[in-house]
Amino acid sequence: MTIHDKLTALREAVKQAGSDGILLQCRDPHGSEYLPDHYHAIRFFSGFTGENSTLIVTMTESALWCDGRFYGQADRELAGTEIVSMHAGCAGVPTIREYIRGHFSAGQSLIIDGRATSAAAADDLKAVLASVGAALTFRDTAGALWDTLGGRPGLPKSACRLLTVDQTGETPAQRIARVRAALEKAGAAMMPIVSLEDIGWLFCLRASDLPHTPLAVAFACLDSRECRLYLDRARLSEAEAAELEAASVIFRPYEAFFEEIPVLAAGKTVLTPPESISAGLLASLSERSDVTVKKAADPILLMKGVKNETELKNLRECHVQDGLAVCRFGMALEAALAEGRLLRESDIDAMLRQQRSRLPGYRGDSFPTIAAWGPNAAMMHYQAQPGKDSVIERHGFLLVDSGGQYDNGTTDITRTYPVGPLTDKARRYYTWTLMGHIDMARAVFLNTCTGSQLDILAREPLWAHGIDYRCGTGHGVGFMSSVHEGPQNLSPRGRTVFVPGMTVTDEPGVYEEGELGIRIENELECVMLQTNEYGTWLGFRPMTLVPYDTAPLLAEEMSRAQIDWLNAYHRRVYETLAPFMTEDECRWLKGKTAPLSP
Amino acid sequence: MTIHDKLTALREAVKQAGSDGILLQCRDPHGSEYLPDHYHAIRFFSGFTGENSTLIVTMTESALWCDGRFYGQADRELAGTEIVSMHAGCAGVPTIREYIRGHFSAGQSLIIDGRATSAAAADDLKAVLASVGAALTFRDTAGALWDTLGGRPGLPKSACRLLTVDQTGETPAQRIARVRAALEKAGAAMMPIVSLEDIGWLFCLRASDLPHTPLAVAFACLDSRECRLYLDRARLSEAEAAELEAASVIFRPYEAFFEEIPVLAAGKTVLTPPESISAGLLASLSERSDVTVKKAADPILLMKGVKNETELKNLRECHVQDGLAVCRFGMALEAALAEGRLLRESDIDAMLRQQRSRLPGYRGDSFPTIAAWGPNAAMMHYQAQPGKDSVIERHGFLLVDSGGQYDNGTTDITRTYPVGPLTDKARRYYTWTLMGHIDMARAVFLNTCTGSQLDILAREPLWAHGIDYRCGTGHGVGFMSSVHEGPQNLSPRGRTVFVPGMTVTDEPGVYEEGELGIRIENELECVMLQTNEYGTWLGFRPMTLVPYDTAPLLAEEMSRAQIDWLNAYHRRVYETLAPFMTEDECRWLKGKTAPLSP
Repeated sequence: MTIHDKLTALREAVKQAGSDGILLQCRDPHGSEYLPDHYHAIRFFSGFTGENSTLIVTMTESALWCDGRFYGQADRELAGTEIVSMHAGCAGVPTIREYIRGHFSAGQSLIIDGRATSAAAADDLKAVLASVGAALTFRDTAGALWDTLGGRPGLPKSACRLLTVDQTGETPAQRIARVRAALEKAGAAMMPIVSLEDIGWLFCLRASDLPHTPLAVAFACLDSRECRLYLDRARLSEAEAAELEAASVIFRPYEAFFEEIPVLAAGKTVLTPPESISAGLLASLSERSDVTVKKAADPILLMKGVKNETELKNLRECHVQDGLAVCRFGMALEAALAEGRLLRESDIDAMLRQQRSRLPGYRGDSFPTIAAWGPNAAMMHYQAQPGKDSVIERHGFLLVDSGGQYDNGTTDITRTYPVGPLTDKARRYYTWTLMGHIDMARAVFLNTCTGSQLDILAREPLWAHGIDYRCGTGHGVGFMSSVHEGPQNLSPRGRTVFVPGMTVTDEPGVYEEGELGIRIENELECVMLQTNEYGTWLGFRPMTLVPYDTAPLLAEEMSRAQIDWLNAYHRRVYETLAPFMTEDECRWLKGKTAPLSP
Repeated sequence: MTIHDKLTALREAVKQAGSDGILLQCRDPHGSEYLPDHYHAIRFFSGFTGENSTLIVTMTESALWCDGRFYGQADRELAGTEIVSMHAGCAGVPTIREYIRGHFSAGQSLIIDGRATSAAAADDLKAVLASVGAALTFRDTAGALWDTLGGRPGLPKSACRLLTVDQTGETPAQRIARVRAALEKAGAAMMPIVSLEDIGWLFCLRASDLPHTPLAVAFACLDSRECRLYLDRARLSEAEAAELEAASVIFRPYEAFFEEIPVLAAGKTVLTPPESISAGLLASLSERSDVTVKKAADPILLMKGVKNETELKNLRECHVQDGLAVCRFGMALEAALAEGRLLRESDIDAMLRQQRSRLPGYRGDSFPTIAAWGPNAAMMHYQAQPGKDSVIERHGFLLVDSGGQYDNGTTDITRTYPVGPLTDKARRYYTWTLMGHIDMARAVFLNTCTGSQLDILAREPLWAHGIDYRCGTGHGVGFMSSVHEGPQNLSPRGRTVFVPGMTVTDEPGVYEEGELGIRIENELECVMLQTNEYGTWLGFRPMTLVPYDTAPLLAEEMSRAQIDWLNAYHRRVYETLAPFMTEDECRWLKGKTAPLSP
């Protein structure tokens, strides 16, 4: 079938549903960062294979919005179809809201899949449509049509496993009991759970259903007596399935979730977290007069965000391993550069994987490696495409952002490597970036502090020179889970108060279009320092253990406190990694971690 | 009349109103920081003469809550009466909420003066009372009784004046037009105004009705055609009254405000700013079916917070004058110390006033001077009482926080003076405080930044050592108005985005109970730095021009950037003030502003 045929079929289905258009998003009912193919309807109907896009099809027109990473790809992949490629955010390009206002009128309606739309996004669309007298309709028209037309990938069904208490420090039964207590405290009797991260945490359940994230595609619903898990029981071993059942778990088919929840909710107060509840589920609960909807924070979010002692011990070990791999990659990169070998950006991914895959418990990367040379690194989410990537020239910087999924944790690290002569400007930018990175890492703060209050510490050394990075300073990281996982973060909008046991990345950067990109990233663990008459004091301790290249640094820009921190960190990196290294590796690391003098 | 007689009469009045108790606050219908005596009902009924207190009288008991500044005073002044002195915030002392819950029961009611209670505070009281089945009643029972019993001070009636365009840069007519446009934009037809600061700004109106704040006690109400000013016309000169009338102002008696507003509001949409609207006024508007209440921010707040070029020019000149006075005070203090004269804390106020009163346009202090030696300075709001104050011993620090009201602005400055040998700890604390003060002053930030984001910059040098100050870093300052005047501030709760033309204090400190207190405070002007591809960059420029004592500093604790900032500031202080100084004064200032080497 051509795209034309598919769009014709889609329009017919929309018409039969009594509607006037449809909006498809890159989003599954779980709010996952990396979608299972089963939910990639945009790919099927438009031919566009990138991420983070929105397709609107009206009876006469269609358009697809994507972000800056995918402008070129969308133009190529949509060429020859009727679909207009919209470069979201560019001057003169209508926003989705503007397009809707221009293409819908009084009495008309737009279809979205309410189950895969957040309640907040649906409210926003409703308001935009209402402003022209049109309405929003929840219906999975595209999914149903795709099923009929054939070729839709099935739901993932990879083998599932339960993590051990040695890995997580808690059994599923203990976690279920904690969440039950929180539910009771919140005055709710039941909570449907759609987030795969929540489900992975609650049941200590892992699989390989998704790229980069070792989770299983499932739903759950907890009440005071039972805990339904919408997952094929056969995906677990008999022993593991039985263990869950002993912890009040009842297995139900994945497909039964959306039908069953409103029925189960009858007569109950249902907790619906505004961060994750889908518009469709909320609507089907709200329309029942015998259900009380209680909007309150997802209690799992904070529980999961604060790692327990076992998870922290595992994560620290995981970072020793990952640090060894990234050091060995750094050595190999230097060797290749010294030999004058031709290197392309897309080679970096393989070089890193070669090192990580030698480590026990490595299960893959936690996100697609970003390897960007020179001006390419100014694109924050640059993806080197083999064949279309740049040669790593022997000047400027190579930015490498990567991470691993291991049986003892998830990692995320960025280093920016000098690959030849640097301009003075490049050295200044690198120095200021590292200064911000260090100022955040050495922050001391009261246990009432949010990410919003802390964020400026990493920015000020760059802001002092009129340079900003247009993103947060850092994000939470899951434990054997998503590499982006809250609730904590370091950003002007970070409302979560930091608690010991939270981990967060610290990744300021400079992105100068057409010139260069610099980012330096560690994962930090929030730790308790002391309690005194002023309150309880927290700080950060780097989990990441990889030296920063000090060659580009202009030490005279740095304060003594920053240099002291850098030298102490490098000493710790050497002392921690050297015992696991060969003599050659030790010699290399000794050089890389040599103290900097002011 | 004894307190016993007064409380008996009050109980009788409460009973006749069909109620079971009454709550009095130190608050007027304008939300003023310094109350006119007319509204100090707590003083009359309890005999307690301090500030910031709450009195509850039930049919059988009574209690008065005050903050730490007034514990001793309340104990003394309430001794021999039935009123229990409650040290608010101390362990074992019931909170006002707890007391209400323990003393009221189902079917009972508590009286408050709704006109002098914020809507938020009233909602809070309502909820507490509702939790025990009791109700809140709005009625000025205490005021009415006080009128009957006699001896109530009249409303202030000092001479009023209009500021000139040379002072304010705008006429009342221009300001009225700007607020009218904002009202229209907010979709409202009318706005009652109770804040004396708002009224002073809108009509360029000043008086001396209140201590420390050169404002007139009045109400106002703006609509699209007229602007009612509830103030005796005879308090202005005929020419000034006529100027206001030409700008659509109608004079009305002060007492008519609360009766008239609901009538004027008939058929209109009324803007009621949640920050300032009183519970009583809101209730009388809300109960009318022909009035639409629109909760929206007070548009005057932001207009007044951003000083225009004329106001800024005047303020800068005002700070040159105030700087001269504070320098001369510093010289006099040093001379007195050198002579070995006995100095008491209460002498400092007179020494400062002696200098300030020599300056043209000085109209008094902008708040009661805080002069606190040694451990006394650990009490943030310490007031030296003549006879009960400390001798300034010749070791440790003397903290002096003071400010003036001038015909070209309002000032607020704190310096902490070494008056003899210092401990190492005192020097470290002084150094870290100044480091925080400097880090805020030299901040560069995007024009999206709030006080909440900036606040940590001043704290981090102290936080690094586990020391915090339990207050904001700084507050807005009015122009010939209140010394504490928002909306901008530097604090973890500061939600206002900074705009060039805003002024704010920068006053970190250390307060170690029983040991010492240090505070260093400048007023800063928010200024535009540049616009580039990252956005629009702002910074601060000190308005205050007085050297910091550098003798206590441990320069090795400071970064080069901090020392550079300090030296540049001192150079500017010298260059700006020296032309107005005698040779002796110049010599002194030269020494005080000598560059610090790292």
